[in-house]
Amino acid sequence: MNRPSPLDNVRIVLSHTSHAGNIGATARAMKTMGLSVLYLVNPKSFPSNEADVRASNARDILEQARVVGCLEEALQDCVLAAALTARPRDLAHRTLAAREAAGELFHHARHAPVALVFGRESSGLTTPEIGKCQITVHIPANPDYASLNLAAAVQLMAYELRMASTVTMPAASQQSVYRLASFQEIELFYSHLEQAMIHSGFLDPAQPKRLMQRIRRLFARAQLEKEEVNILRGIISALEKHRSK
Amino acid sequence: MNRPSPLDNVRIVLSHTSHAGNIGATARAMKTMGLSVLYLVNPKSFPSNEADVRASNARDILEQARVVGCLEEALQDCVLAAALTARPRDLAHRTLAAREAAGELFHHARHAPVALVFGRESSGLTTPEIGKCQITVHIPANPDYASLNLAAAVQLMAYELRMASTVTMPAASQQSVYRLASFQEIELFYSHLEQAMIHSGFLDPAQPKRLMQRIRRLFARAQLEKEEVNILRGIISALEKHRSK
Repeated sequence: MNRPSPLDNVRIVLSHTSHAGNIGATARAMKTMGLSVLYLVNPKSFPSNEADVRASNARDILEQARVVGCLEEALQDCVLAAALTARPRDLAHRTLAAREAAGELFHHARHAPVALVFGRESSGLTTPEIGKCQITVHIPANPDYASLNLAAAVQLMAYELRMASTVTMPAASQQSVYRLASFQEIELFYSHLEQAMIHSGFLDPAQPKRLMQRIRRLFARAQLEKEEVNILRGIISALEKHRSK
Repeated sequence: MNRPSPLDNVRIVLSHTSHAGNIGATARAMKTMGLSVLYLVNPKSFPSNEADVRASNARDILEQARVVGCLEEALQDCVLAAALTARPRDLAHRTLAAREAAGELFHHARHAPVALVFGRESSGLTTPEIGKCQITVHIPANPDYASLNLAAAVQLMAYELRMASTVTMPAASQQSVYRLASFQEIELFYSHLEQAMIHSGFLDPAQPKRLMQRIRRLFARAQLEKEEVNILRGIISALEKHRSK
């Protein structure tokens, strides 16, 4: 058996994959680089013979893959989720190139689960899906044809993660020593804030515009720590309690 | 049309490929990274529908591919040929890891053609084939399962070549297109928040501890934009107004 590695804390999450062959090729790509944890959000067809064939000797990864109904389930307990996107988005998160992102993911994977999230073959991730992630990642590519095959994108990211694991990380991305908040903690914070905004009349649920999206984007950039979430929720509660007196 | 690039001097050479799908996937992998010159040494079946399908929008590369009868033909005029090998060989050439090899190939491609040579899916390159190359290249991988799919190996090398071509590119961390808030705007936000925290009883001015410091640190990481400051101050005001009713 292998020794435990931070790579065991890296989840590959495929959302709404159409072609089973890509799932198999993803498993193979993962295994060649030492990744093993695969989550499938609503795959169109799985398990499948086509996936098994393309997985070659990485079927163990398919057998252990977790099939879930929504992205939230796949991100449970993750302290950092990175969304792969081909194009920069207008409501941009902090965007990192593949190599840089791999370094940051690997750094956090030393302590807690992290996720790399890949969208549909045809259209990528939806805006709400990206909204559940803290950073977006782009793979440097030919601007005239950046359409990487899904498994090829997984292969590149898995390779960069493996490379990150073999570099004695120069403190380049000096991350804080504080513990990052989990996916659930951050989602509870957003719900709390949203409720407070509605009660105070700042947010009209009938006309929400893109307010929560903007707020998610802001705090995603900050990569909230556990204690910071507590402080922010404490402030909201204090303002609310005081108000209701 | 694109400007000439040293990447135009990089040949991908596939020797004795068995599966036409891999040739198509190779073309796609190449095009995503800006490579275009493909040589096929004795492919088992080419052209093929399977190759076309897997090439997706990179069929132009298949159409321009040169089919040759032996490796020597594919290496005509090349100043450097690099053989991909999964394992170190006993009669070892100078062996470089993928990243290092890409740097060296790109360097020479500024002036003359170079080649990256990939062998059969099942057994890789033969010893005589490797003997025609000047260096061997290995892709760092899981020692327990280093069996990369052929097109995946091409994808990684093409990516490293592209990365080598953009080394001076700092544009990786593109800052958002939104306008960042000014120093004053941010300071006014902190004051506003601090006052609200004091009024609500969350912050005791006699015992402030390091609360504001923590909050400053959080928002500093986010690098607030003008509009975000307005949103945050709007939320605070709404909560406060509601309270004082």
